[in-house]
Amino acid sequence: MKKLIIVKIGGNVIDDEIALKKFLILFSKIKGDKILIHGGGKLATRLSEKLGIETELIEGRRITNKETLKVTTMVYAGWINKSISALLNSNNCKAIGLSGADAFIIPAKKRKLGKIDYGFVGDVIKEKINIKLVKALLDSKLTLVIAPITSDKNGQLLNTNADTIAASLASALSNLYKVKLIYCFEKNGVLNGGKVIKQLGFGSYNELKEKGIIKDGMIPKLDNAFSTIENGVKEVVIGNANQLNNIISKNAGTSIIK
Amino acid sequence: MKKLIIVKIGGNVIDDEIALKKFLILFSKIKGDKILIHGGGKLATRLSEKLGIETELIEGRRITNKETLKVTTMVYAGWINKSISALLNSNNCKAIGLSGADAFIIPAKKRKLGKIDYGFVGDVIKEKINIKLVKALLDSKLTLVIAPITSDKNGQLLNTNADTIAASLASALSNLYKVKLIYCFEKNGVLNGGKVIKQLGFGSYNELKEKGIIKDGMIPKLDNAFSTIENGVKEVVIGNANQLNNIISKNAGTSIIK
Repeated sequence: MKKLIIVKIGGNVIDDEIALKKFLILFSKIKGDKILIHGGGKLATRLSEKLGIETELIEGRRITNKETLKVTTMVYAGWINKSISALLNSNNCKAIGLSGADAFIIPAKKRKLGKIDYGFVGDVIKEKINIKLVKALLDSKLTLVIAPITSDKNGQLLNTNADTIAASLASALSNLYKVKLIYCFEKNGVLNGGKVIKQLGFGSYNELKEKGIIKDGMIPKLDNAFSTIENGVKEVVIGNANQLNNIISKNAGTSIIK
Repeated sequence: MKKLIIVKIGGNVIDDEIALKKFLILFSKIKGDKILIHGGGKLATRLSEKLGIETELIEGRRITNKETLKVTTMVYAGWINKSISALLNSNNCKAIGLSGADAFIIPAKKRKLGKIDYGFVGDVIKEKINIKLVKALLDSKLTLVIAPITSDKNGQLLNTNADTIAASLASALSNLYKVKLIYCFEKNGVLNGGKVIKQLGFGSYNELKEKGIIKDGMIPKLDNAFSTIENGVKEVVIGNANQLNNIISKNAGTSIIK
């Protein structure tokens, strides 16, 4: 099986122009097939504030209304996606910027859990990911840069979690490739008392969660990571964007194991 | 030679959600290889106004400053490009939304004429258009939807005229395809006294221009159109977006002839 490296970049790195450029130079040097999935950083929130779009809450949950969807699509699939694509191309990495909506690469459906309407939020339909097209593009020596915007079968754009997109794509492609999935952000990995946990198994994860050591945004990230391991992804590592080389060679970050 | 239809859609059609949907249904039904290039309508201007970005003029010329570039990239390559792509996909037309910056499909350089700095405005480097990739994507049965944002070799995004992108792409592809280029907008074609001119040759064009009958925005559009005819494009037609079928069959719009 051919190797495929899928990197998710998010958090503060997206907001920091210099850190992002440094990361993209590292990423552009990865040999072989690779995919980059990016989040949106704080830019979308700041733009919403400037435009006076109010955060809509229903029963304490944040709703993606029409205006918010427009802002996130503009920021994620427009400014960030094209900035990354242009920078990678200038570093001799033939990158093509896409969203999940393009050619239905990552089909989704509007989230509805019980009576709660989350607005224009999409859940990935994992079994319908367009693996054939992803492979065809990779075979054409293209690096895919994917923004976390998807659409449903009616052509409705939907805001979708970038960590989940990375996990779903990694799982779906693990039949065709030996997939290494890397979550990059501004921390050195999953931390315990300030120190990076080198290997994290499902048992220890649950213990650390119960103790409140692993918490907040790290929980959905790790849930995604563990699900991909269950679904055939060979390696999942979480680490600092500016240590990408060392993460790939397993000399940095937290490796997720069964 | 295989046929290829390149359609440029712009003007008020982009701003009118219902007109745009109608047009996209017509477009999705075109058989065979096709490319859609879109402009940005008034959305970018309105967003700039809302954000308080002032129009910068140097010696009477409008400058694309950093903030304006951000807005146009967000609106063109983000919201409009993805909305079109999602709608086409929901109409069984496998569309992939790109900008000129992606995989350097349409490489550009920053415009500089004499001492005037236009800001982040790009001129297409016609001889470097990535024809091979466009063909590979079309051969994969994908419809290309292209936003008028390009980049230079340093990874700098640039705002680029959509009419020129359509013309450059049509010319570059005319070695591989029998290209039909269609400019769609809200008028029925090139008008003379309210009536559509069915065929317009270069001689009559110059006469009508001198008389002031053809003027303003129509002039660069027609200059682009005539240049493509000179460069091997078989047919160029200008007409109303809601008459796309009739334009393709040459029963509507203005045909540009040598």
